Amino acid sequence: MSVSPFDHPVLSGLLGDEEVAALFSFEAERDGMLRFEIALAEAEAEEGVIPGEAAAAIAAALAEPTLDLDDLKAGTASDGVIVPALVRQLRALLGDPHGAKVHFGATSQDAIDTSLSLRLQKLLAILGGRFDKLIDALTELEAREGGTGVMAHTRMQAAIPVTAARKIRSWREPLVRHRDRIEALENEVAILHFGGAAGSLDRLGDKGVGVSRRLAAKLGLRAVLRPRHSERDGQAALANWLSLVTGSLGKMGQDIALSAQTEIGEIRLAGGGGSSAMPHKVNPVGAEMLVALARFNATLLAGMHQALVHENERSGAAWTLEWMLLPQMAVATAAALRIAGGLLDGLAFAGKNAAH
Amino acid sequence: MSVSPFDHPVLSGLLGDEEVAALFSFEAERDGMLRFEIALAEAEAEEGVIPGEAAAAIAAALAEPTLDLDDLKAGTASDGVIVPALVRQLRALLGDPHGAKVHFGATSQDAIDTSLSLRLQKLLAILGGRFDKLIDALTELEAREGGTGVMAHTRMQAAIPVTAARKIRSWREPLVRHRDRIEALENEVAILHFGGAAGSLDRLGDKGVGVSRRLAAKLGLRAVLRPRHSERDGQAALANWLSLVTGSLGKMGQDIALSAQTEIGEIRLAGGGGSSAMPHKVNPVGAEMLVALARFNATLLAGMHQALVHENERSGAAWTLEWMLLPQMAVATAAALRIAGGLLDGLAFAGKNAAH
Amino acid sequence: MSVSPFDHPVLSGLLGDEEVAALFSFEAERDGMLRFEIALAEAEAEEGVIPGEAAAAIAAALAEPTLDLDDLKAGTASDGVIVPALVRQLRALLGDPHGAKVHFGATSQDAIDTSLSLRLQKLLAILGGRFDKLIDALTELEAREGGTGVMAHTRMQAAIPVTAARKIRSWREPLVRHRDRIEALENEVAILHFGGAAGSLDRLGDKGVGVSRRLAAKLGLRAVLRPRHSERDGQAALANWLSLVTGSLGKMGQDIALSAQTEIGEIRLAGGGGSSAMPHKVNPVGAEMLVALARFNATLLAGMHQALVHENERSGAAWTLEWMLLPQMAVATAAALRIAGGLLDGLAFAGKNAAH
Amino acid sequence: MSVSPFDHPVLSGLLGDEEVAALFSFEAERDGMLRFEIALAEAEAEEGVIPGEAAAAIAAALAEPTLDLDDLKAGTASDGVIVPALVRQLRALLGDPHGAKVHFGATSQDAIDTSLSLRLQKLLAILGGRFDKLIDALTELEAREGGTGVMAHTRMQAAIPVTAARKIRSWREPLVRHRDRIEALENEVAILHFGGAAGSLDRLGDKGVGVSRRLAAKLGLRAVLRPRHSERDGQAALANWLSLVTGSLGKMGQDIALSAQTEIGEIRLAGGGGSSAMPHKVNPVGAEMLVALARFNATLLAGMHQALVHENERSGAAWTLEWMLLPQMAVATAAALRIAGGLLDGLAFAGKNAAH
Repeated sequence: MSVSPFDHPVLSGLLGDEEVAALFSFEAERDGMLRFEIALAEAEAEEGVIPGEAAAAIAAALAEPTLDLDDLKAGTASDGVIVPALVRQLRALLGDPHGAKVHFGATSQDAIDTSLSLRLQKLLAILGGRFDKLIDALTELEAREGGTGVMAHTRMQAAIPVTAARKIRSWREPLVRHRDRIEALENEVAILHFGGAAGSLDRLGDKGVGVSRRLAAKLGLRAVLRPRHSERDGQAALANWLSLVTGSLGKMGQDIALSAQTEIGEIRLAGGGGSSAMPHKVNPVGAEMLVALARFNATLLAGMHQALVHENERSGAAWTLEWMLLPQMAVATAAALRIAGGLLDGLAFAGKNAAH
Repeated sequence: MSVSPFDHPVLSGLLGDEEVAALFSFEAERDGMLRFEIALAEAEAEEGVIPGEAAAAIAAALAEPTLDLDDLKAGTASDGVIVPALVRQLRALLGDPHGAKVHFGATSQDAIDTSLSLRLQKLLAILGGRFDKLIDALTELEAREGGTGVMAHTRMQAAIPVTAARKIRSWREPLVRHRDRIEALENEVAILHFGGAAGSLDRLGDKGVGVSRRLAAKLGLRAVLRPRHSERDGQAALANWLSLVTGSLGKMGQDIALSAQTEIGEIRLAGGGGSSAMPHKVNPVGAEMLVALARFNATLLAGMHQALVHENERSGAAWTLEWMLLPQMAVATAAALRIAGGLLDGLAFAGKNAAH
Repeated sequence: MSVSPFDHPVLSGLLGDEEVAALFSFEAERDGMLRFEIALAEAEAEEGVIPGEAAAAIAAALAEPTLDLDDLKAGTASDGVIVPALVRQLRALLGDPHGAKVHFGATSQDAIDTSLSLRLQKLLAILGGRFDKLIDALTELEAREGGTGVMAHTRMQAAIPVTAARKIRSWREPLVRHRDRIEALENEVAILHFGGAAGSLDRLGDKGVGVSRRLAAKLGLRAVLRPRHSERDGQAALANWLSLVTGSLGKMGQDIALSAQTEIGEIRLAGGGGSSAMPHKVNPVGAEMLVALARFNATLLAGMHQALVHENERSGAAWTLEWMLLPQMAVATAAALRIAGGLLDGLAFAGKNAAH
Repeated sequence: MSVSPFDHPVLSGLLGDEEVAALFSFEAERDGMLRFEIALAEAEAEEGVIPGEAAAAIAAALAEPTLDLDDLKAGTASDGVIVPALVRQLRALLGDPHGAKVHFGATSQDAIDTSLSLRLQKLLAILGGRFDKLIDALTELEAREGGTGVMAHTRMQAAIPVTAARKIRSWREPLVRHRDRIEALENEVAILHFGGAAGSLDRLGDKGVGVSRRLAAKLGLRAVLRPRHSERDGQAALANWLSLVTGSLGKMGQDIALSAQTEIGEIRLAGGGGSSAMPHKVNPVGAEMLVALARFNATLLAGMHQALVHENERSGAAWTLEWMLLPQMAVATAAALRIAGGLLDGLAFAGKNAAH
């Protein structure tokens, strides 16, 4: 046990996911913000908002800046966001006259939310790849063992014999549907957040739209007409999708754990978990973890929807609540996809019941 | 207070919605199931599964059958679903030889879930109409008062002056996005559920696909290749959407309640609520209800996602959990749309702060 | 399906509980408010705040008043609470000069929350009685069948043989702990709520404490020094307890459903549910309902805790949220206790595994 | 943003709590398990279950063992729990003949849950101390500023003038109630978990009770008659209490943020947060964090109650779910108490409204 099992030196082996966790590390977050600030300076220079040499100086200085982490931590504790302290450090790094041009016209939320957008874009790409593999694995499983007879169970009782294909398709098809939603989701979350103090880009005059378009293009994000500082349906929709994925995998895990029960034995697992008290046991650990991760994400999803009640132009409370929930949900989903892949690797249907 | 405020003789005036609640009445549910059984018999007759005269007899007898409600209630208490008792009554009504053809090849979940599909289809149509009106109202509000100056507030503090248009658009645009999702949602939930005992249409032999297609067409539902008895992502996606809608309206309600605070007074409401102790007060009751309904749906959404962990071919526990949550979420959403419309009716921006 | 299964003409047979639902009917709520208003008048008369004859007139007029339900519904829709309209009707019933003395010095929340307190007190008494019976039934089950051998299952796998007593005690002892918390809970929730407009009893001058004590005594509730209009930990603690109860019963239900699986057969149930497609099945409907009710209450509990964030001296949003959740949780708990009793009635251990 | 803000190098300054987070570090968890294993060996030696020299050897070897973390991580990934790999390492450290006596008669859950008990005991002591300070701070605030006039606000509208004391007491008294529950809670959670493979201490014959009592005494934990491997009401009750605490503090935070609004200005805060776009702002960051932490814990609580549905003698899924939720809830609560203390430090009532 640790504050978060996803960050735990031991439990992360069970429940974590290094590749996706890395997207939510401080380093990745910082790099996303620096990328935003550099691209912002460049876009503003191109639109004539700041001098070209300021943008060049900013790009150089922010490429690999040495940051004072203690100061960032203290600043975050005081300001609620890292950006004021970060911008102060970056401006000091640059000195006069270009320092003042860092973060010009932007607000903390622009940097933080856009850094998140960049990483959510990567998240969807990573998860998309895993979906492909998992769906393929289920297709192969059906090809190999779909004809095996199994007992259907409804309401926790044996019903009538069916084929394993019936079961495998009920695991596979929801995943296909979830994969098919990725593109629409990317459209929702891989967007530029740029609005300045109160979302009106008040410091940029009539250059706001131009800077926004250039900035989005540089970052490979979708430009939206207005910032969504206080409209969090994109984040909530992503959270919903993450929980749909873990829910569908949790259903598969539950089915596998039920079918692998000693007395039922319709599914055999390779490499189940051992027990400290009962060496004879083969525990369906992966299947159980899928259930646990499903219930975890289902739980946290409620908080992401509570965060939709985002007061006025920026809610410190609702926004912070997202930070406490969304990264965990992403890693939980990645872990579930990873675990599901491993679980299928050694899975075989036992063929105890005649096929229908 | 009552078991449910949505069914309460007094509180339903505040929190309920008659039009949408009617979709979840026993009568509507029953009618949906009867429609399913009649269409099923007709489809089976057309495919040669049952005699044409059986289908005709079923259609006649089920048009307006007299049902024994006490028996249905007792049967449901015992079986966990209404269908065995209902089918028993319907078969008795028909008598020999056609009685046995009622519900042929189907299972309880087919009738119940399809009845729900029919009503969810109506739900989306009703809510869609309300969206149109609400979005229009916000467009008009912006046209009328968008130029008024208001103070932007970030992190619960006055920030900089903006126009009311900034605020109105942050309420309107999420609603546009939600409306645009309705069609995709309908594709997910307005589907035929038809699989028989264990989802394999085992009683229909090679006629399964034909009967399914005809049945779906008769009911105006989408035919899906396989029944989704145990795949509940459609229901969960609908619940997510309902909670996105109430969340966005809750954000609008929160904003209005904050702007209408006595000391701030940037928004004036017509017809606020009175107090039994303080006759001078004008309470922003509608705005508060939007917040309450948002937090309600956000809460219940978690349970809809817990229900994704649906064991095997049919989970009595997970399925029943949906019945306890989804209808409430639908009515809460309808109520929020209704309340939001009323709230905007008498809303005016006070113009205390110079426009930006 | 209906807006709430607890109010549904058919589903309430499965999931409802008439005795406890009655506590949350409009009639019970109204009677509690009238009892509050009568006792308030009497207490105020005894303290010299209002004339004795006013109190007598109020007691007479409010004994069985004829109320205009449509007006109450419309008033609630407008004011967010029933009390302004109710008090207006009651004052009109009384006429001059005593009408003005109805509800003197009180606020809506005093009447509504105290009416709830009176009914929560009854709720705990009813549930307490059911606990006694259920605990006795488990004690008898252990006496009768505790020696039967069953297989222990850990992590969904057969572990080692134990006796049925091991299992029965793990169901019974949490219930004993929950029962033992009832007295402390009653102390939290069966309290007088009386504070006037803003909790300071501003209209009563130095008579506030005296009136409070007399009022509490008349109603059989605990007097607390200050009203808890905005302190909702009592309600949240009750909700937690309700969910602990359904959680423990849900665990029992899950165990029973698992042990009653066709292939395991360690538990036999009398009178399981039938299937419309598979007449041979005996579904563990009661056990499944216990799981569903547990997950339902666990879900709703989160909302009761969200309602702790109760802004200022009275939050319309947070308070209303309680109304949407707590009554359902109470009925769900009552239903679970009722169902658990029925489930144990016909339960037998099959003795397939040698006792340890 | 990071997987968990509580473990984040920067965000932990805002939302974390080092002292309590340390209780949930791997090191603390490991030390608790080693303490369990040493005390178990000693208790078993005293009861004659294992030789005294085995116990002495175990105590020596487990005092500061060098562990292979990679192996523990891999073992946990495979077994779902750390204990099989840990015990294997510890037995190898000891070698023959005493190695086999490590963990004798115990199961993984005994070691893990008891290690948690030891740390929850410390948690309650730490939080208890913070409660004392916070309650004192509120008492002092009332003594100093309780007479200041403030406007009461009900339903987001100015109601009538009251004194600051009215507000301060509504913050303080729930905390007093929460503090008073600590002792009962400790009784629930600071217990020995010891049951062996299936809770029956099957390997210890008639020595089970004796070993249990000695073991509990050595560890300073309460001995309970039977292990509560599958009865998780203690953990859920703790989670409820944690969320009650953050809920009450969230209510205080919400009140402070509302009173500190620029236009209201009834509360002044020292050292609010700065903005990257608006240097003039003083954001009520601490108050917002209290709201965010309240909503966070309210959200997670639902999952702890879902985990009550703990199938059979040990549920891998439900138990793991606790690991993902409870530590975070504890740190969130500690952070809220820490932040609340800081917030009160610089808080003053402005005295804009005449006292009542």
